[in-house]
Amino acid sequence: MRTNTLINRENSIPKGVTDFLPEQAERIGFIEGKISRTFELWGFRKIIPPMLEFEELLAAGMDESLREKSFRFEDRQSHRLLAIPPDITPQIARIESMRMKGYPLPHRIYYNGRVLRHVESQSGRSREIYQTGVELIGLDSPEADAEMIAMSVEVMRAIGFEQFKIDLGQVDFYRGIMASADLAAGSAAEIRGAIARKDISSVKSTLEDLDISDDLKTQIVALSRLFGGIEVLEKAAVIVKNDRSKRALENLAKVIDILSMHGIKDELTIDLGEIRGLAYHTGLTFEGFVPGLGEPVCGGGRYDSLMGKYGDPRPATGFAFNVLNLLQVFENVSAKDLGRSPAFLIFNRGEDKSPALALATALRQQGYPVARDIIRRDLAESLEYAQLNGIQYAVVIGEPGSAEDEVLLVSTADGIRRNIKTSELSAAAALML
Amino acid sequence: MRTNTLINRENSIPKGVTDFLPEQAERIGFIEGKISRTFELWGFRKIIPPMLEFEELLAAGMDESLREKSFRFEDRQSHRLLAIPPDITPQIARIESMRMKGYPLPHRIYYNGRVLRHVESQSGRSREIYQTGVELIGLDSPEADAEMIAMSVEVMRAIGFEQFKIDLGQVDFYRGIMASADLAAGSAAEIRGAIARKDISSVKSTLEDLDISDDLKTQIVALSRLFGGIEVLEKAAVIVKNDRSKRALENLAKVIDILSMHGIKDELTIDLGEIRGLAYHTGLTFEGFVPGLGEPVCGGGRYDSLMGKYGDPRPATGFAFNVLNLLQVFENVSAKDLGRSPAFLIFNRGEDKSPALALATALRQQGYPVARDIIRRDLAESLEYAQLNGIQYAVVIGEPGSAEDEVLLVSTADGIRRNIKTSELSAAAALML
Repeated sequence: MRTNTLINRENSIPKGVTDFLPEQAERIGFIEGKISRTFELWGFRKIIPPMLEFEELLAAGMDESLREKSFRFEDRQSHRLLAIPPDITPQIARIESMRMKGYPLPHRIYYNGRVLRHVESQSGRSREIYQTGVELIGLDSPEADAEMIAMSVEVMRAIGFEQFKIDLGQVDFYRGIMASADLAAGSAAEIRGAIARKDISSVKSTLEDLDISDDLKTQIVALSRLFGGIEVLEKAAVIVKNDRSKRALENLAKVIDILSMHGIKDELTIDLGEIRGLAYHTGLTFEGFVPGLGEPVCGGGRYDSLMGKYGDPRPATGFAFNVLNLLQVFENVSAKDLGRSPAFLIFNRGEDKSPALALATALRQQGYPVARDIIRRDLAESLEYAQLNGIQYAVVIGEPGSAEDEVLLVSTADGIRRNIKTSELSAAAALML
Repeated sequence: MRTNTLINRENSIPKGVTDFLPEQAERIGFIEGKISRTFELWGFRKIIPPMLEFEELLAAGMDESLREKSFRFEDRQSHRLLAIPPDITPQIARIESMRMKGYPLPHRIYYNGRVLRHVESQSGRSREIYQTGVELIGLDSPEADAEMIAMSVEVMRAIGFEQFKIDLGQVDFYRGIMASADLAAGSAAEIRGAIARKDISSVKSTLEDLDISDDLKTQIVALSRLFGGIEVLEKAAVIVKNDRSKRALENLAKVIDILSMHGIKDELTIDLGEIRGLAYHTGLTFEGFVPGLGEPVCGGGRYDSLMGKYGDPRPATGFAFNVLNLLQVFENVSAKDLGRSPAFLIFNRGEDKSPALALATALRQQGYPVARDIIRRDLAESLEYAQLNGIQYAVVIGEPGSAEDEVLLVSTADGIRRNIKTSELSAAAALML
């Protein structure tokens, strides 16, 4: 009874992780399949990094806050510190420098995996994150940045979203202004935090005491307001004076120009105060949003400094989908919407198993899932069993009233029955669904 | 330069884990896809258990040796001991008792995941194991056992193996004999170890000093010799006297009988001395072997005692493929064998990007992977780039000598070139491959 007590505790699995039962697992499979397929069609090839890394190496590619979130422990074998990766991109960077010498640049790589992160106990956030993403390594052109965004749009369309937004940022715009201001580290950090929170009054009060020009103060305050449609670019160009920020705007304009050739325009918004990825990103950043969810479903951007930390400096851009965020806005989707074939349960009234085996084999060859009801029970129970287990049809072999070459086809959702020629079974089922 | 030194160390990733680059990742995807697809066609539905569990709960479903192999650490949130699962079946057992009340029995469940296990430093074994397996829960009939074996055979055929063997065991045959002998725990353990190692001389020397009948000694010695074809069943039936062992033989005979209806007969071998899964299994067991690999590629069997440890006793059988074992015998397979469409690299000689974008979109809609060569370089370099990155064709837009509605198609493997109408591109590529 000991284990019985254990299992009945409410907290039988750790907070922040989830068991996905068939209905949800099928949706996750659908989402991951659409993302992976789109990445492959754009010429990206899959890499599978391991679930264990030496912490020291992984840490070289992460900022301190992400490093703090990783699950770490000592290796019994090497006595070095191991980590379960909290993010896949640093693993790709390690693999790039260790294993990809034989492949000329650029590299188009995708991955589909799960990572673990410690989170605050009360945050309600997931500790297990399902990431499917790409890295495009070795290209510093705006075309590479545009390719990321165009793919994210293709994925959202492939999954079935008709409405979505892509919010663009460019961290170098912010960096250019702050470099002109040349503030002390403390003030710079205060301002950075306030801008990241979009807390204009804090930005203003911090600026009040600083000895910089009014013009620069205006630029810094403006950062929090420079968001909206593509017209933001023009507003920003009027305000800034430094070359770095101007180049950032030109880069954004080029990417937007290329995206318009991909037919992507109305979906774009711009936020020049978006600097949350500052520790990592070096240029254009973006996040994708779908209706009904405040959190982004995908995000990424340019990170030209990461690869150098593993010894091979090279430009790179990439992004990842958060699969469980997508899952949240993917409820009330039927098996048919997911492109799944209807499933059959074979119910055999006779003693001879051969017809049931032959029928199962024939249906499977046509791509239909088939389970056989090995238990002896009555048809009503079998129908209930089938429906609760996501099986759309029962096929009864040897039903009184069926002809020799017929079976009884029963829809488990509504109980509609019809006798049907065995050879026409799959076609009839597809019609009835 | 610190990280540069780090990365150049030979041991840049922990022993027993692997980075899978595209060629291998594609094979893993092919293997996992064939296994999952077969499971789905047999009516099994996917479940995704988490990467973190409370150690105490997981341990209830594992023997001590497996428990010792799990990666464990304290949860920062709950301060309870957490574990990364070393096996997925105990997770399924936990989920069965916690989450599956709404689904009538039997349950057909499959999973596709990775587990971590500590291994001996010198063993050369993997610490990261890719498991794709099924559990059939709630049925104790030989038909359920036969279903497992029939599916394993279907998977091996689907992957492309024409020759393979299924080795059957039945741990209750051994248990029946040992129960009749009623040995002291120490002697029983010695004999069990020797039989598991197929060390007949140790079995004999241990038996010499024991006060049991010569007939029982003969039976125990015979355990190590009762392997071979189906004729082993008859030999064994002559030797044993106890009911439990006789029932085990009858069970095996029934399963073999059902398998013959599935057309599976010559592939079967029997080993009644196979007791390695004793701590866990309660009836029929099996392992699948393919030519060229001594280790099994799949294995499993009946485990009627596990679910009870989580409070809900119910019969169960299941098995799993070891994906990386399959990968070992899956070398020298081309992209075409893997069912992959040829991939294209678009090389644009002109300045206008629209034709390249339009061509890429058209080919992707037909299911062909397309990358665009954004870098400016000469065609020879692009061809080398494409070949080393697994891209079968370069398509040159605007090549002198191509007509207005033509492109130049170049096979990267052999350099063969032909001008071809843009609209006929995909058909021509499929023919050339």
